[in-house]
Amino acid sequence: MNEPAQPPPGQPAIILCEPQLGENVGTAARAMANFGLRDLRLVNPREGWPNDRARAAASGADHVIDAVRVYPSLKEAIADLRFVYATTRREREIGKPVAGPREAAAQMRASAAAGRPSGVIFGRERTGLTNDDISYADEILTLPVDPDFGSLNVAQAVLIVAYEWRIAGIADEAAALPFRSPGDGPAPRAELIRLFEQIEGALEAVNFFRPPEKRPHVVESIRSMLQKAALTEQEVRTLRGVVAALERRPTRPRKLRDGTITTERGKFD
Amino acid sequence: MNEPAQPPPGQPAIILCEPQLGENVGTAARAMANFGLRDLRLVNPREGWPNDRARAAASGADHVIDAVRVYPSLKEAIADLRFVYATTRREREIGKPVAGPREAAAQMRASAAAGRPSGVIFGRERTGLTNDDISYADEILTLPVDPDFGSLNVAQAVLIVAYEWRIAGIADEAAALPFRSPGDGPAPRAELIRLFEQIEGALEAVNFFRPPEKRPHVVESIRSMLQKAALTEQEVRTLRGVVAALERRPTRPRKLRDGTITTERGKFD
Repeated sequence: MNEPAQPPPGQPAIILCEPQLGENVGTAARAMANFGLRDLRLVNPREGWPNDRARAAASGADHVIDAVRVYPSLKEAIADLRFVYATTRREREIGKPVAGPREAAAQMRASAAAGRPSGVIFGRERTGLTNDDISYADEILTLPVDPDFGSLNVAQAVLIVAYEWRIAGIADEAAALPFRSPGDGPAPRAELIRLFEQIEGALEAVNFFRPPEKRPHVVESIRSMLQKAALTEQEVRTLRGVVAALERRPTRPRKLRDGTITTERGKFD
Repeated sequence: MNEPAQPPPGQPAIILCEPQLGENVGTAARAMANFGLRDLRLVNPREGWPNDRARAAASGADHVIDAVRVYPSLKEAIADLRFVYATTRREREIGKPVAGPREAAAQMRASAAAGRPSGVIFGRERTGLTNDDISYADEILTLPVDPDFGSLNVAQAVLIVAYEWRIAGIADEAAALPFRSPGDGPAPRAELIRLFEQIEGALEAVNFFRPPEKRPHVVESIRSMLQKAALTEQEVRTLRGVVAALERRPTRPRKLRDGTITTERGKFD
């Protein structure tokens, strides 16, 4: 993973998941630049990175191309974000809220105003996002295309999202209110993902996933519930303690009254 | 001038003034089709018409390509319209009102409702519209691009205009989306409360609530997370299975392959 200069805080990240063609990375960068976005992240670009065709197709959006960050997996690409949309044009059997670009832009502006970075994941040119990819997102973002002809390429979808982000910055009601919603806001995605992995590991250990072919659906359903709860960091810690306790796994060493150290049935805090 | 079937009345016409590349005509047609527009007019396309590259670039928007009308001059292309926007990204010394795509879309919707067809003129790829071209328009339409990087191609500009037209026709963005948020809604509170009790009982059994005076706060925190997730009935069932599995409690009787009935480590479904 390379680490170029950080983009301005608050802007949504645009995450392209396994883009196949460098040219499409470039046209997406150009679309972003037009509406002032700069945080472009790539998960496993098929043609590798850096890519000359991407730069050429960016038509001068070199500041976006130069700041691209590349990640080996989607979960690493979103680790620092606190609210994530997955774009899809097909309805999925996943119980996630669905937003259009205008509602999503308003939500991401509010999130940014509260200091919580957000992002939008775009899928592969041919096949889009898998259900597993989508299971890492809080909500689904879809575009109001004609149901008889929905055929946007990735740069066009990025363009609409970036456009709505820019327009949404013009009047931010939340910033004008005398006080805000309580709360720390959602945990960094990395912590949520560790919780996913802990729960899935614990369930694996008790042979919960049977028959095995049902596993992906059950995993998606559990992740989806956890996403919906918009867990704070503290809540993620509490839940991890809950899972560890139910697993009857030692949590952390503690001293008993008689002075011995134990990790048995540790209290979590 | 060819005369194909008339597009639906009321839709704005998209007029490309002397487009240089057939490919750009095609990508503009594709952008239109995504948001339900069909009235594409060309003024003196440099590569002539019909154009194979246009059709290829339209990615299936054949109904738009087939309905294209070609005119020898801009004034003929707009002759039947009653309100016309000219797009430009540079300020001109022309005393015309300037609108953004959202305001323009609202205006064109109102115009359509009054039976007055409108249209939007887009300029040449390299040089845009001349002041003379613009003199035929009622108002100027410009896009809210970043002043430091305004570089939309013609299909991208058409995309934004078509997108705003589509949204402007629907009071509620959600109604324009190809699919909605899932509609099961939250589970009856009784089921949620049973889940609370199951979790709290399971944690009691592993002495999770220590010191006891912390119990109320931890219980409230866990309930709060579960409330925030707005769990459906199915999700409550899944979670109850998860908790039962982690408790290593028998869930429900099932038949083994040898025919015996067991409740050991039952599969949850």
